[in-house]
Parts: sequence; C-alpha cells; structure tokens
Amino acid sequence: MALPSPSYTITLRVEVPASQRATSTVVGAIADAGAAVTGVDIAHSTHEGLVVDVTCDAVDAGHSERIVATLDTLPGVRVAKVSDSTFLMHLGGKIEVTTKTPIKTRRDLSRAYTPGVARVCQAIAKNPEDARRLTIKRNTVAVVTDGTAVLGLGDIGPAAALPVMEGKAALFKEFGGVDAWPVCLDTTDTEEIIRIVKALAPVYGGVNLEDIAAPRCFEIEARLREELDIPVFHDDQHGTAIVVLAALINSLKVVDKKLSEVRIVVSGVGAAGNAIIRLLKAQGAQHVVAFGRGGALRAGELSGDVHRDWIARNTNAEDFTGTLAEGLRGADVFVGVSAGNILTGADVAQMADGAVVLALANPTPEVDPIAAGETAAVVATGRSDYPNQINNVLAFPGLFRGLLDTGATEITTEMLRVAAVAIAGVVGEDELNSSFIIPGVFDPRVAEAVADAVRHVSAK
Amino acid sequence: MALPSPSYTITLRVEVPASQRATSTVVGAIADAGAAVTGVDIAHSTHEGLVVDVTCDAVDAGHSERIVATLDTLPGVRVAKVSDSTFLMHLGGKIEVTTKTPIKTRRDLSRAYTPGVARVCQAIAKNPEDARRLTIKRNTVAVVTDGTAVLGLGDIGPAAALPVMEGKAALFKEFGGVDAWPVCLDTTDTEEIIRIVKALAPVYGGVNLEDIAAPRCFEIEARLREELDIPVFHDDQHGTAIVVLAALINSLKVVDKKLSEVRIVVSGVGAAGNAIIRLLKAQGAQHVVAFGRGGALRAGELSGDVHRDWIARNTNAEDFTGTLAEGLRGADVFVGVSAGNILTGADVAQMADGAVVLALANPTPEVDPIAAGETAAVVATGRSDYPNQINNVLAFPGLFRGLLDTGATEITTEMLRVAAVAIAGVVGEDELNSSFIIPGVFDPRVAEAVADAVRHVSAK
Repeated sequence: MALPSPSYTITLRVEVPASQRATSTVVGAIADAGAAVTGVDIAHSTHEGLVVDVTCDAVDAGHSERIVATLDTLPGVRVAKVSDSTFLMHLGGKIEVTTKTPIKTRRDLSRAYTPGVARVCQAIAKNPEDARRLTIKRNTVAVVTDGTAVLGLGDIGPAAALPVMEGKAALFKEFGGVDAWPVCLDTTDTEEIIRIVKALAPVYGGVNLEDIAAPRCFEIEARLREELDIPVFHDDQHGTAIVVLAALINSLKVVDKKLSEVRIVVSGVGAAGNAIIRLLKAQGAQHVVAFGRGGALRAGELSGDVHRDWIARNTNAEDFTGTLAEGLRGADVFVGVSAGNILTGADVAQMADGAVVLALANPTPEVDPIAAGETAAVVATGRSDYPNQINNVLAFPGLFRGLLDTGATEITTEMLRVAAVAIAGVVGEDELNSSFIIPGVFDPRVAEAVADAVRHVSAK
Repeated sequence: MALPSPSYTITLRVEVPASQRATSTVVGAIADAGAAVTGVDIAHSTHEGLVVDVTCDAVDAGHSERIVATLDTLPGVRVAKVSDSTFLMHLGGKIEVTTKTPIKTRRDLSRAYTPGVARVCQAIAKNPEDARRLTIKRNTVAVVTDGTAVLGLGDIGPAAALPVMEGKAALFKEFGGVDAWPVCLDTTDTEEIIRIVKALAPVYGGVNLEDIAAPRCFEIEARLREELDIPVFHDDQHGTAIVVLAALINSLKVVDKKLSEVRIVVSGVGAAGNAIIRLLKAQGAQHVVAFGRGGALRAGELSGDVHRDWIARNTNAEDFTGTLAEGLRGADVFVGVSAGNILTGADVAQMADGAVVLALANPTPEVDPIAAGETAAVVATGRSDYPNQINNVLAFPGLFRGLLDTGATEITTEMLRVAAVAIAGVVGEDELNSSFIIPGVFDPRVAEAVADAVRHVSAK
C-alpha cells in the first residue's frame, strides 16, 4: 500500500467550534484517515470558533479528497481550503536571477553598465579567453531539454518540463555552487537542437542535456561534444552510469568479489544502459550480458542501430541466447534500467551467492526490492523510500564543479570513472554494509570529493 | 579635457617608507597628476615601511600609467600592483542563479524535485496556462543579442557582448524586480535568430532584444511579435523612444509649447529614429522632418527600404529639401540619434526661441551641449555627466514589470506612450526646470509609475 509522503503534503484550513476538544477531534480524524499530521497552527480565534491550519502528508489526490470528506461529516467542522505544499513551493518558480553587486549609486552603474562596461567588452573582444574570467561563463551551465522524456512522464513538452529543469538548477547551486539555467526548447528536431545549443554556447561553461528521448539524445550529445569547446554531459546516461559504478564498487566490497570476475546482467539497452556498460568496462568489467526487449544482444545478430550494435559487439562473449530470467541464473550482478516488475524474487534467488541487485526502473523497480532482498546480498533502487538510493544528484553537481574550476573543454570517460570512484570512496570501510553502499544525497563530502577527483584528472 | 571618472577607478598598492609624511606625499602626487583620490587604506605596516592601497578615479589607461610613473620617481616609493575596480567588479560575472527555497532536507528535495515535481509537470501539461503560475516564466525575460551593435563598439560578437547583457539583467532586477537572463547568440542569421528565440520562449514571459544591428533588428522584432505569445521589445528602439517622449513632454512644459504645434527635426533614421518618430506621432506630434545622411526624407523620393519609406511617407509634409543645418532654422525641437559633432552652437542658435535640443549620440552628442545651451532653452544628452540624461533604464524595468504582472501577450504603442507619460509625470510641477526635465535613474518612483501605467493599459 502507498504510504503518506512529504511530496504530497497538504495544509487543510478547517473551521471548528470553540471547544476544548474540537481541534484534537479533527487531528484524530485526519490521522485515522491514514495521513501523517506534521503541524497544527491556529490561524484565527473568536469566541464562537477557531480557524485551524492542519498540515499533513497524504498519499495522493484521492486520499486528500477522502480526508476532506471525512472532516466535513464532523459536527460543526468545515474545511474552508486545501493547499498543496508542493504546488505552493513551485509558485512563481524555484530559482531567480540575482545581482552579485548592488547597483545603488551612479558609481556602481558606471562600472557595472555604461560607460565602464565597454572596456570589459573590449578586453573580451581582444582576448576571447577573458570571457571565462570576466563573465558568468566561468560558473554557468545550461540545462537543456526538449521535454520528450521527462522523468517517467514521457513527452510532455518543454513548458511542462520546466519545473524539473528549475529543480535541477536548484540542485546544481545547492550541491555544487554552480549557476545553472533552464533551456527548454520548443523543438524536437535533432539538427535544430544542435544548432540552438551551439548558438547559445557563448554564455555557458558547460551543457547538461536532460530528459531528451533516445535515440535523438545520442546524436545530439555526440555532435555537441565534437563541435563545442565546452563540456557536454547527458545526465540520464552518464550521471546514472557514474552512480551505478559507484554503487557496484562498494557492493562488490561487501560481497568480496572482483569487478573483473563477476558476471553482470544488464536489463535495458537504451541511453542509460549503453552508458553504464561503457563505464563498467572502463573500470574493468569483463563479463557483461545485456538484454533488450527481444532478449540478449549478440554480436552475431546486429540490429543496424549503432548504439545497440556497439553493445552487441562488446558484451555477451559467451553468446548467450536465453531469456532475461534464464540469463540471471548464476549471475553475480543485476543492473536494471528498463521497466518495472519484469522479475520476481524467485528469479533473483537463481543468482549466485552474494548477488547484487541494482533495480533502477522508476517509480517501480524491475523487481520488488523486498522480495529481491530475501536472497540477494545487496539491493539498491532509484527510490528514496528504500536503502541504497541510486540518485544522480550524487554525481552532476561535483562533476561540473570540477569541470568549471579547471575550465575543462571536454568530458572524458576517465573523468566519469574517477567521479564514480570518488563517490564510492566517501563511504568509509567502517561505514560500509549491505544497506549503505552509497552515500546519502545530503552528504556534504560527496560533491567536494567528486570535484576534487575531476579537477585532478582535468588539470593533467 | 576628459575628467577622472568612477568608470575608471583604480586601486594602487604602494610601498612607502615608515615616515609620517610618506603617505601624504603619495596621495598628494596622485592628486597633482589629475586623479581624484577616493580612499586610502593601510594594507600592511612594519617598522620599515607601509603598504598602502590608494583608490582613485583616473581618466583612462594612459592616465593610470602616468600616475604609476610619477609615483615610482618618489624616493623609497614603489607601486607593487594596480587593480582596475571595473574589471574587479566583473570578475566571474555580475549575476548569479539562486534558489528561492533551500533544499536541505529529504522533504525539500521530494517537493522541489522528484517525486513531487512530477505532479507540477502534469498540471502544466494538462493546462499550459499554469506555466505562468508554477514556473519562473511568470517573472523572467530573455535579454537577446547577436553582439552586432554593442554600445558604440559595433560588431564585437556574442561573447564580448555578454558583460553588457549581464549588466542589463542586473538593472532589470535592481530597478524592476524582473529576473532577466542573457542570451548571446553565436549567429547573425535573421531567420536563425527568429527560430532560436521562438524555441527558447517556453521559459520566458518576455523578450528584450538588445544591440542587434539594423536593419536585421526590424525584421526580427516584427516577426517575433507576430509569432510569439509573449511581449517582444527592442530596447534600442522603443526604450529610447519612450524616454525621448518623456523628456520632450516635460521640455515643452518648460518652454510652454504644444507638441501638436512644434516643428521637430529628427537626425537619424535608423532603428531608434524610426521608433521615436512613431511614438511622437502617437502622442500627437504633427510637424516632423527626419534627416538621414543624404538629407531630409521625402515622400516623393522613396528608397525601397520599408522602414525609411514609412518615415518618408509620414513626415516632412512641407517637402523640405535642404540640409540638416538649414532644416534646423526656426525649428522648435531637435532630436539627434545619429552621430557626434554634426552641428555647432551656431546651428542651434538658428532655431526658434525656447528651442529644445535632445542630442543623444553617444559618447559624443550631435552638438556640444555647452555650446547648444548658449541659446537653447533645454538641452539633454545620453551622458551621465551633464544634466537631463536620456537613459533607457528609466523605461525597460518598469515596462516589463507591468507586462509580467498582467501576463501581457504583446506590447502596444499605447503601452509605450503611457510609459513615457508616466516617466514625465514623476517630475512634479514644482521640481520642473530646464535642468530637470527627466527624473534621475535612481529615482525609485519611476519604475513603479511606469509599471502602474502599463498594468492599467494592459489589463484593459
């Protein structure tokens, strides 16, 4: 059963009679309806009655409506208004543009703007490298989407994608000190997107591609990497790959196995699967079998899709031809970036002893984590309500912090790899166990460790 | 002679002997060299000597070098370093992206980002109008340039234009509370610029075009106005026009003449001249003659350029054919948006009694304002070092504040006109005189008055 969640917090404004017990009756009724009450504030009070704001975590919109209906049956009680705190938080957007130095006097104005600014412009015109010193380019990243693969919602368009990109920008600032700006493009044409991002580049020190549908995302990323002199990163691919590798490094410590020796089954050969397999191989993985919807990818059965065929040629040396469940028998590691509920606990039970299951489909993992945990040694998901959350926020803020600090012009696989090793390294030997293979998203050591590692590689 | 300016403030780090008089000798020498000393700070002190930071306004780079050379001749004195405060102010850029609500806990994260954000995305996907309520679109303006006509510097490219666009964004925030973001485009193709701005539009509630060369700017503005559902404003045209009309309204009060009756000579038929003439006519001006480089524009002598020919058809009813200086004879008003030093005090002396001269070429006005002031009743320029500065910052922050507040989808001529009337109205009857026809740029009443006027018209 779904549980009340802080992502569905509501505030109920309730009018109650002025009696000793009225408020506690209301709070009790809300708790009985299955919501978690987190705050009670008296908004107004008169001799006749009270207006009380009750804040609680609910499950979803239907639950919220049931709570209101329950309260309205209580004698003398009326629900005047229901506010949804998630929507309140998003009102007017989540980020703003602020000035670093105030412009309060003529002296400020003549330096920040005309006539003084002209000398700064001329310095950059004369020496383009100065743009990284004298403008926001030094610390600014474009968060680019076309709105075609937003979260699990699919193609909802650029306007509806904006709340996610704002949230991403907020995370960039909070965790990495990076100024990030949402670029939500009202076009899905690959060439157009490439041209636009190239044209926008003078303002930015890096590009973070986000929630762009495959296979378009591959072409856009590859071309921009080639044609721009600033780093280009597709978070859905490489951010996920970094955190998966970090989790796997620590998981294998827990079960005392070596990456080069384990048999790894990957379910999902889209953007994320492709990037994960590449990064696992860069770290030394030798035995990978990847499954698409049609079964295991094999070198002898190419599809014509260059990204799938790269996987087919570089995995499955044993030429396995069975189903995913069959492939899992005796495997040491399962990595899922595909679809919810495609495996059972019984399938996981067929894996080798000390099995590691990273089931990242969202919001429903490939296998129920409770069921998987009955036999697997380590289970991780993309969800925040189970241990071991694989969350990209562990990677991108520190990665771009490092890239911007060194003025990097590209992102190498080695940078991705050291970022993963750095995340894994934040979990100390004394902290490591099967429920703590990856640091928490609020661990302040993570971004700094990733940035350090990337700066070290980038400066070489 | 050029004077020391706060747009050229330097800080000299000077090592001097530890004597009572050493520091005052240094400060005296700097003052003797023609700089205005604004601060003296002791950075270090030992028994042998002092390190003193002297901040002063200089004229230009050559002046700064002469000051250093002078100090280096003083016994025991050595200039260790010269810092240019304008460049220091621009280091790392002048704006940043900040979060409105902190993301410090799991509860914050689950509302600002996943999973809570998904509900906000779905709300916008279902009802696109909600983007103005639930995202930064409500308060955000794109400041768009291609870097082809930056200040008086010309085509310096998008990277070198960025310090100006950042400054503009800072002014938007400081004066209008508007979040503005620089969009410096690495293309000069008209169709490409139009396509890009249209593709970027989901994030923005308005577009401010800036420093784009004519005639490209006309086409870009016209097409974007037609094809976008958010207001599009070309500040070099309409911002200037608003402030010119405001200045003229008050100037005519000073000389007690009526706009419908005065003879107005406009020099400059580019982007700004065109917009000024349109707005003057909207306010009731009847007698305008406009001069390009080839003389007065006439309905009988069309050029084929649609913007020039609109001027030719809608001005110069008297079919005047002489030179600019000849045209000025007996005229009541001169508006210059052309080139420096094309008129003399003697030309201005030929104007009617109570002449108004708005000479806006920058940094050198069409006529020396001191010479013009010998006979003209009112003189205004674009410069901050004379009275009556015609500065666009009086218009754009309040204009966009009003547009965003009402969710306006377009900008009408009536909005521009009421903005001008509002700016003029800030100068009270008791304050009005020939040296104060326009409010100062830091007058806090201006943006609010403009926003009020625009809201009133927009809400109709």
